[in-house]
Amino acid sequence: MSAMSTIPKKSLMFFAGRAHPELAEEVAKHLDVSITPQTAHDFANGEIFVRFEESVRGCDAFVIQSHTNPINDWLMEQLLMVDALKRASAKRITAVMPFYPYARQDKKHRGREPISARLVADMFKTAGADRIMTVDLHTAQIQGFFDGPVDHLWAMPLLADYIRDSYADRDIAVVSPDSGRVRLAEKWSESLGGCPLAFIHKTRDPRRPNEAVANRVVGEITGRTCIVIDDMIDTGGTIAGAVKELLADGAAEVVIATTHGVLSGPAKERLSTCGAREVVVTNTLPIPEEKRFEGLTVLSIAPLIARAIHEVFDDGSVTSLFNGNA
Amino acid sequence: MSAMSTIPKKSLMFFAGRAHPELAEEVAKHLDVSITPQTAHDFANGEIFVRFEESVRGCDAFVIQSHTNPINDWLMEQLLMVDALKRASAKRITAVMPFYPYARQDKKHRGREPISARLVADMFKTAGADRIMTVDLHTAQIQGFFDGPVDHLWAMPLLADYIRDSYADRDIAVVSPDSGRVRLAEKWSESLGGCPLAFIHKTRDPRRPNEAVANRVVGEITGRTCIVIDDMIDTGGTIAGAVKELLADGAAEVVIATTHGVLSGPAKERLSTCGAREVVVTNTLPIPEEKRFEGLTVLSIAPLIARAIHEVFDDGSVTSLFNGNA
Amino acid sequence: MSAMSTIPKKSLMFFAGRAHPELAEEVAKHLDVSITPQTAHDFANGEIFVRFEESVRGCDAFVIQSHTNPINDWLMEQLLMVDALKRASAKRITAVMPFYPYARQDKKHRGREPISARLVADMFKTAGADRIMTVDLHTAQIQGFFDGPVDHLWAMPLLADYIRDSYADRDIAVVSPDSGRVRLAEKWSESLGGCPLAFIHKTRDPRRPNEAVANRVVGEITGRTCIVIDDMIDTGGTIAGAVKELLADGAAEVVIATTHGVLSGPAKERLSTCGAREVVVTNTLPIPEEKRFEGLTVLSIAPLIARAIHEVFDDGSVTSLFNGNA
Amino acid sequence: MSAMSTIPKKSLMFFAGRAHPELAEEVAKHLDVSITPQTAHDFANGEIFVRFEESVRGCDAFVIQSHTNPINDWLMEQLLMVDALKRASAKRITAVMPFYPYARQDKKHRGREPISARLVADMFKTAGADRIMTVDLHTAQIQGFFDGPVDHLWAMPLLADYIRDSYADRDIAVVSPDSGRVRLAEKWSESLGGCPLAFIHKTRDPRRPNEAVANRVVGEITGRTCIVIDDMIDTGGTIAGAVKELLADGAAEVVIATTHGVLSGPAKERLSTCGAREVVVTNTLPIPEEKRFEGLTVLSIAPLIARAIHEVFDDGSVTSLFNGNA
Amino acid sequence: MSAMSTIPKKSLMFFAGRAHPELAEEVAKHLDVSITPQTAHDFANGEIFVRFEESVRGCDAFVIQSHTNPINDWLMEQLLMVDALKRASAKRITAVMPFYPYARQDKKHRGREPISARLVADMFKTAGADRIMTVDLHTAQIQGFFDGPVDHLWAMPLLADYIRDSYADRDIAVVSPDSGRVRLAEKWSESLGGCPLAFIHKTRDPRRPNEAVANRVVGEITGRTCIVIDDMIDTGGTIAGAVKELLADGAAEVVIATTHGVLSGPAKERLSTCGAREVVVTNTLPIPEEKRFEGLTVLSIAPLIARAIHEVFDDGSVTSLFNGNA
Amino acid sequence: MSAMSTIPKKSLMFFAGRAHPELAEEVAKHLDVSITPQTAHDFANGEIFVRFEESVRGCDAFVIQSHTNPINDWLMEQLLMVDALKRASAKRITAVMPFYPYARQDKKHRGREPISARLVADMFKTAGADRIMTVDLHTAQIQGFFDGPVDHLWAMPLLADYIRDSYADRDIAVVSPDSGRVRLAEKWSESLGGCPLAFIHKTRDPRRPNEAVANRVVGEITGRTCIVIDDMIDTGGTIAGAVKELLADGAAEVVIATTHGVLSGPAKERLSTCGAREVVVTNTLPIPEEKRFEGLTVLSIAPLIARAIHEVFDDGSVTSLFNGNA
Repeated sequence: MSAMSTIPKKSLMFFAGRAHPELAEEVAKHLDVSITPQTAHDFANGEIFVRFEESVRGCDAFVIQSHTNPINDWLMEQLLMVDALKRASAKRITAVMPFYPYARQDKKHRGREPISARLVADMFKTAGADRIMTVDLHTAQIQGFFDGPVDHLWAMPLLADYIRDSYADRDIAVVSPDSGRVRLAEKWSESLGGCPLAFIHKTRDPRRPNEAVANRVVGEITGRTCIVIDDMIDTGGTIAGAVKELLADGAAEVVIATTHGVLSGPAKERLSTCGAREVVVTNTLPIPEEKRFEGLTVLSIAPLIARAIHEVFDDGSVTSLFNGNA
Repeated sequence: MSAMSTIPKKSLMFFAGRAHPELAEEVAKHLDVSITPQTAHDFANGEIFVRFEESVRGCDAFVIQSHTNPINDWLMEQLLMVDALKRASAKRITAVMPFYPYARQDKKHRGREPISARLVADMFKTAGADRIMTVDLHTAQIQGFFDGPVDHLWAMPLLADYIRDSYADRDIAVVSPDSGRVRLAEKWSESLGGCPLAFIHKTRDPRRPNEAVANRVVGEITGRTCIVIDDMIDTGGTIAGAVKELLADGAAEVVIATTHGVLSGPAKERLSTCGAREVVVTNTLPIPEEKRFEGLTVLSIAPLIARAIHEVFDDGSVTSLFNGNA
Repeated sequence: MSAMSTIPKKSLMFFAGRAHPELAEEVAKHLDVSITPQTAHDFANGEIFVRFEESVRGCDAFVIQSHTNPINDWLMEQLLMVDALKRASAKRITAVMPFYPYARQDKKHRGREPISARLVADMFKTAGADRIMTVDLHTAQIQGFFDGPVDHLWAMPLLADYIRDSYADRDIAVVSPDSGRVRLAEKWSESLGGCPLAFIHKTRDPRRPNEAVANRVVGEITGRTCIVIDDMIDTGGTIAGAVKELLADGAAEVVIATTHGVLSGPAKERLSTCGAREVVVTNTLPIPEEKRFEGLTVLSIAPLIARAIHEVFDDGSVTSLFNGNA
Repeated sequence: MSAMSTIPKKSLMFFAGRAHPELAEEVAKHLDVSITPQTAHDFANGEIFVRFEESVRGCDAFVIQSHTNPINDWLMEQLLMVDALKRASAKRITAVMPFYPYARQDKKHRGREPISARLVADMFKTAGADRIMTVDLHTAQIQGFFDGPVDHLWAMPLLADYIRDSYADRDIAVVSPDSGRVRLAEKWSESLGGCPLAFIHKTRDPRRPNEAVANRVVGEITGRTCIVIDDMIDTGGTIAGAVKELLADGAAEVVIATTHGVLSGPAKERLSTCGAREVVVTNTLPIPEEKRFEGLTVLSIAPLIARAIHEVFDDGSVTSLFNGNA
Repeated sequence: MSAMSTIPKKSLMFFAGRAHPELAEEVAKHLDVSITPQTAHDFANGEIFVRFEESVRGCDAFVIQSHTNPINDWLMEQLLMVDALKRASAKRITAVMPFYPYARQDKKHRGREPISARLVADMFKTAGADRIMTVDLHTAQIQGFFDGPVDHLWAMPLLADYIRDSYADRDIAVVSPDSGRVRLAEKWSESLGGCPLAFIHKTRDPRRPNEAVANRVVGEITGRTCIVIDDMIDTGGTIAGAVKELLADGAAEVVIATTHGVLSGPAKERLSTCGAREVVVTNTLPIPEEKRFEGLTVLSIAPLIARAIHEVFDDGSVTSLFNGNA
Repeated sequence: MSAMSTIPKKSLMFFAGRAHPELAEEVAKHLDVSITPQTAHDFANGEIFVRFEESVRGCDAFVIQSHTNPINDWLMEQLLMVDALKRASAKRITAVMPFYPYARQDKKHRGREPISARLVADMFKTAGADRIMTVDLHTAQIQGFFDGPVDHLWAMPLLADYIRDSYADRDIAVVSPDSGRVRLAEKWSESLGGCPLAFIHKTRDPRRPNEAVANRVVGEITGRTCIVIDDMIDTGGTIAGAVKELLADGAAEVVIATTHGVLSGPAKERLSTCGAREVVVTNTLPIPEEKRFEGLTVLSIAPLIARAIHEVFDDGSVTSLFNGNA
């Protein structure tokens, strides 16, 4: 008999890009592994270099990166890490992207545009990623952009639990800040026990066609604690506008709850002055001190990501984390 | 000098599956070409056979199929036609699918489901399709499922023109039959001059958790002509329920406008008895006599498809057909 | 040290499409596993939906489907199951197709035809199948259509054993019903101890060119028990014609032995009246009561499939099931 | 307007490997182009080097190679030529292989074998071939091994015309030298007006199981001019044995007709002494002086290949060369 | 006859990323086309958006980008442009990268590193690029990283002509700044008429192993005008060190000639103070005012790129631009 | 619960092509496995056939071949072995190529050439190789030609140890035989403690442009033991010329050290008469008796390959074999 035989072992290794070390550390702690040491730096012309300091041969690799600004650098860094893992004989590679980059460009809004979210999926496939793990995609269809398994985690239970605990005694209404998130608002409503729903309708006044767009609240919100929900807050313009409109229309108070706190440019200013009582986000993206303000609550996504990684490694069930819904 | 040179010519050939010969003929007439003769039949065990009766070498091939029931047969037939064209040296192959099959399964709604719409895109790629042309995708993100150009045509202008002409003097409200189509309703509203918006919110009464779901109209529709819009009507349950709810809530009258008239099973019965004044659809799918009823208006999509094919063949602009919006 | 290690386990899961539940159950019983529970149904417009009810993460998945009429539905169902398994992180996926669909269209018989059997192989690759298991391919070259391992099982030993036992004392001749299966007949002859061979030659009388085709028996069959062999019986026309020709030419009796009992349309009528003493098939395809007739013997392929699946799962040898010949 | 426009031209360029310069020259003459000059040589360690001496940018390239011994060298040379054309921006590349290499290994005859003919197809795809042109594949299914158009030319009409002219007045029988070519023999029979058919059945005498294989003629050939047909003659053992068996069984005379004259090793000796009156082959492979013998007739395949190349270049019909049958 | 026929036209369109508008404009002027108008901007979180303002259907697209810092942004922008062109039905897409990004990471220098230059090539393939055009790759093997045609342009003739004209009367030696560019120096030497060669050998003194690396000039340079050549100057450390070493060793004067003026960080300071008489670079990368200094000469690469694009569009010969050497 | 579970085992199987049985046997001995028995032979027309005699299902396969002349045969044999392993369900396949074939054609030296080394990498991918193991690539960039892990082993430590031991007391200089290997010479110099460096500069005398090329030694070698290094010796012309030049220029003695002893054609004659004291190579390629001569030392690469295979199988670290440098 010519073969040599052994019992294989299976080992999880955890890798982290440089974008959001706090989140990576927290996930590692929950997983009870340490982040694999690596060298990573930028060359003078902006090119990124990475090398792992330990053998990764045969490992089940999970590579986390938080796609914050400068987003193209962090994207490239994660792709290079995946390429290095592939070439160093990692057995399986899962790219963990708590915030999926370019998710908003998930279709051609008009002709001659890219579908950037598909390109991102393909680039990870090309680099060597076998799987993707992500949180609250801008649209769930992005799962289908990747040719392989996508573990799509939901932060809504985390956020909704918080809201439910904090505003237990209020009369709540869930509000979508525009017409595209009404389905999500409906899910929130279900999760909060079937409360009323509303959305902000951007409209041109038909009698004054040359004038600017007006916001109109569709749905009944008078006297209620309005929970304005969305998957992300970028510059905060739409959502701050929604808050003002709701307050003007008679809302008792307004709370904002979103998964991804992008919080670019004027977001801090807008959110802290729009009249919202509280802004709740998770830490899928880093929120440095200078972006924080009173009324901002940051919930940690790390326990959820760690549990999901553990299920994936252990051939358990990610779906079970969400009662069969993910 | 060793080469032999000529001026190339470029020729459009048009091919049609057997699902909806009327639409194919109408498109051919608008294009001013004839449908390429082919042999197509089913073997006794259901396997499909196709062969083209003319040389297709070097042609720019457009292959139309209407994905009606039995949908898997028509899907397979179109795939076989594409394979035959590829192997017979067609230069470029565009699969024309006025109704994209399996478009509703565009994501995993829960764990361990397929993403069938992505699979369909990949199967066309595998068979040899270079391009896809389709009308009003269930979600626009499906464009990104295909690794190549997708000409995404919009029937809304056609439908909206008809509504505008037919109900010019009414006070209109646009209504989405559920929370997932509010964005589409907003586009309709824009297209109809900024009229009010509403949607039907399916909800459980929080005080009676074991009871059935109730529909609630969110938005102001009293006394108005409600245009209930959607991309497709399949069995008509949701949409007929919406009509009844609207009438109960004080709508003056209700008109249904959707692109794809799937009209399966109880659809005819439901639609003809739900109280809607008119049901407007296009002929992306065949609507045989037995599915028709009084109040059903069928608009032809053929001119739009023919114009788009012509632009594609002629390196013109499909976007221009929609004022730069597609 | 940064990694977390465990000993992996390896688990076989068995999945079944809806085409032939009896065969699936029988294979499961032989394997001593149960069929993984799933939801599968048809939407009103014919689209198929599937979802597995248990976690499949990391499993070695075997997905059986029997490609009977409506064959395109069962093909699509199996593809969707494979896609769902891929996206749900099954470790390895083997599509088990006892009867390979579209096997007869394995080449272009004339110009501008598809090569459907290759397309089927590519579609399974695209959907995510790593391996294929099948029984008695129409031509063995189809193995080469799939870019990966194909376990090609042979039913001939099963059939030949039965014939040997049942007709032990007869003078046997093996007969191919047309010129394309003479090689197969030769293998049967070897397996039955070197008995004579014949085939039916379809020919036009050179002196009467406008008249119909005549069958001529080539080979010596007078007074013998003729075993007419083929890989499948579809409508039974060719094979029933062969039986009549053989009897007319002096055969003592005729027995038909084929692997795949497609038995479409007039097959039952033709076979039961052609004069054959017995028709032996396997249950690679379902043979419902209404297709059965006196003289039809159905042998079960389930034990062979179960043994092969077990060898594949256990890294044993499928070839060994056939004494090194497969 | 930003674009620069011109009328494209289309040019055919013809390239030849070093295996069979006479055939290449003859095809070029029929096409009325010259072979593109190239440098091709072997390095001392057997590595092959090629470079084209003229720009090939944008051309429609046809690359002919004759896969004779040393077959792996000629295969590699053609692959390198295709790679060089791809990288030098040829617009379309057709690999012309009059004799498809490794065609006999088109399936796993037993377990753990390669399917070499599929590997060859994939290697051409990988190197950059868009299309394949070949003559009389060992099995037609090999067409399906290539993911793209295959122009499959038939030499049978050429050979059959020659036989018909030369043996017009004889009583002919067509004979397959073994059980695997009976279908081909039937096609010949049709082409020669419906003459009788026979084949040689290799069998073990059931009463003397330990003795060698015996050949038995199945079919009626007494007193006839037997045309033994096959796709190729390699060492000639099977076919020379068939000739002897036929003469012993009473054939009036025997003529051999095959497309590919591989004529390896003992072939010349065997064929010239087996008693055949004439051996007819084409020049798909080079037949140097030392392989020739009295009674060998070599027909040129060059006009057929040239016509097919011209049809492909000109978007004509290759099928039409064979009355719609290829 | 069913087809519609026309004479195709062929049109070149030129697209430019935002990194180096001066170079793009200059190339456009030489080509006599205008740059296709586009919208391109960065979202607040760094995501890039592009859209073309004219139909690009059927065009032969050339997309130029200069990969300067922030290099990952410009890389992503070009990839998005390519994706948008593919999805908008451009006929052929050539990515023009005068400076190939990540070219220095063209191999694993040590274990567990990425091969970033290959990843870049694959990402362009994935996005939809058919071809790549670039200037003076860091190593020529990078051509082989792309699966398709690479037009590799050489700036050396441009630089060498300038040196020859400017230093016609000097005794020249060509010097490689390290051991890895001696081959390139040899080519320069040939191009300058066979002048002597030297290189700088970085060495550790074997007797003082703990001391720093010393530079040693290998080759004869006393009294000569040394031309220090390289493909790029990044921070200028190596090359400035080489200049000092050469002057210390007796060089009459030193001139630096390199293709790519990356000129990061301390480059300006180092180069302007190292003692070199002149530093000659091309404008493959933008060299803004603040990087310039006395003694810096910038030659324009635009005419060469424009000529190459024209040859590619016109199916001419790029090789001919370099006397058959590229 | 429906699954059947076991603990997987993992088994290494070792396969050898026919090119260099001694090396394969030696590696097997070091690994303590036997070579898997196989049938391999050439058909009369040069086609190669292989079949494995034991089940390979689920194994971790290592397939060694030594790419000596006839190199295309051995290349094809290894590809066929890989294809057979893939189709027989080997779990992972590593192609071990101690001498990477066609490594010198790693770029287009001039226009319209292939990049043969990339083609070789792609052919292995196509055949089914998951990984490549090789020794001292002609250029390290070839690693990037393969889309997957490449274990790149270095023979330099082996050779350098031998030189260090044998010439411990000499004043050594390391010499590159041409301008392209100076970097390698520098690595040797480091490894030998920082000794001086030189290279041979091929030059045309500028004053006699029509005369032949002259060799010039650049660097100080007088009185030293020169170690002329290279990755391979093919016909030995360049290297023998270098030896003569060095001796003429005053070298005390010359030793040649290269990894790959191709030793084609006149190599033996040239090397044995050029004046070198010793020629040291490894046995990556077979060196049969007739190529050997006095002064030739052959070191075995087998222990290194065996150690690397063991590390790969065992998920150890190949990098560690080279102190983190490979």
